[in-house]
Amino acid sequence: MLIRPALPEDRTAVWQILAPVIGAGETYALPRDMSEEAALAYWIAPQHETYVALIGDDVVGTYYLRANQQGGGAHVANCGYVTADGHAGRGIARAMCKHSLARARERGFQAMQFNFVVATNARAIRLWQSLGFNVVGRLPGAFEHPREGLVDALVMFRTL
Amino acid sequence: MLIRPALPEDRTAVWQILAPVIGAGETYALPRDMSEEAALAYWIAPQHETYVALIGDDVVGTYYLRANQQGGGAHVANCGYVTADGHAGRGIARAMCKHSLARARERGFQAMQFNFVVATNARAIRLWQSLGFNVVGRLPGAFEHPREGLVDALVMFRTL
Repeated sequence: MLIRPALPEDRTAVWQILAPVIGAGETYALPRDMSEEAALAYWIAPQHETYVALIGDDVVGTYYLRANQQGGGAHVANCGYVTADGHAGRGIARAMCKHSLARARERGFQAMQFNFVVATNARAIRLWQSLGFNVVGRLPGAFEHPREGLVDALVMFRTL
Repeated sequence: MLIRPALPEDRTAVWQILAPVIGAGETYALPRDMSEEAALAYWIAPQHETYVALIGDDVVGTYYLRANQQGGGAHVANCGYVTADGHAGRGIARAMCKHSLARARERGFQAMQFNFVVATNARAIRLWQSLGFNVVGRLPGAFEHPREGLVDALVMFRTL
């Protein structure tokens, strides 16, 4: 697997990865009917460093890295990761997270925080825990899951 | 005290309130050298509902109300409050917070979350707790305080 910065010509592939996840509305706090333009403006924002993961020529995942806060909070990184539909369980998210941790260290970040991990997303929580993240907060009923109703969201954190 | 929506002609007064707080860098995760233009673009953003508190003709405080997340997280509100220099201890922040809770209920929000309350800001923490907020998360060393060094930040939450 190759992980490299996203290029302008990756935009369509990135949208094809984001679309089903945003449409499902089960893991990201984004509007389920978000347009391609709005989704790409969010994911490939100027203040985001956006990467794609490739197997052969296929884009099978994407992630962004950014500072979670400005000013006195700018030493803590934040990332979002999405694996392409049909490619779960192949270690792609793990590889992207490890890549992001190394890149965040390289940029001088001292910690990484996930602000909003939906508590029903058990696979992701286990993965982040296995990569050194701790649950440091629980937001009660902060996420309206399309099938489960109001569920908690977790704040996860690790130093670098 | 009157609390009303901020008008275009309040911009200078709002900046005069924000400037010392941003410049001090002790309570908000914003660049200490943030320009007036950038600060007002942040505080009076299109997706923010921004209010000012007045005593007589003097603007003595300002706050914003917004959805903290989009999509499945859009039922949780978020606010930021700043009291004018020299007006602390007069109940202005308390009045603004109570106003914001009522306004958030009116808009149909089901909860309110503060994402980043600097742990050394004891007065604010006591105030939010007295208004029904609970600490639901603690971000270790997430804020670089200009005098205290790395200090924790708290996530605070209450239902409406």
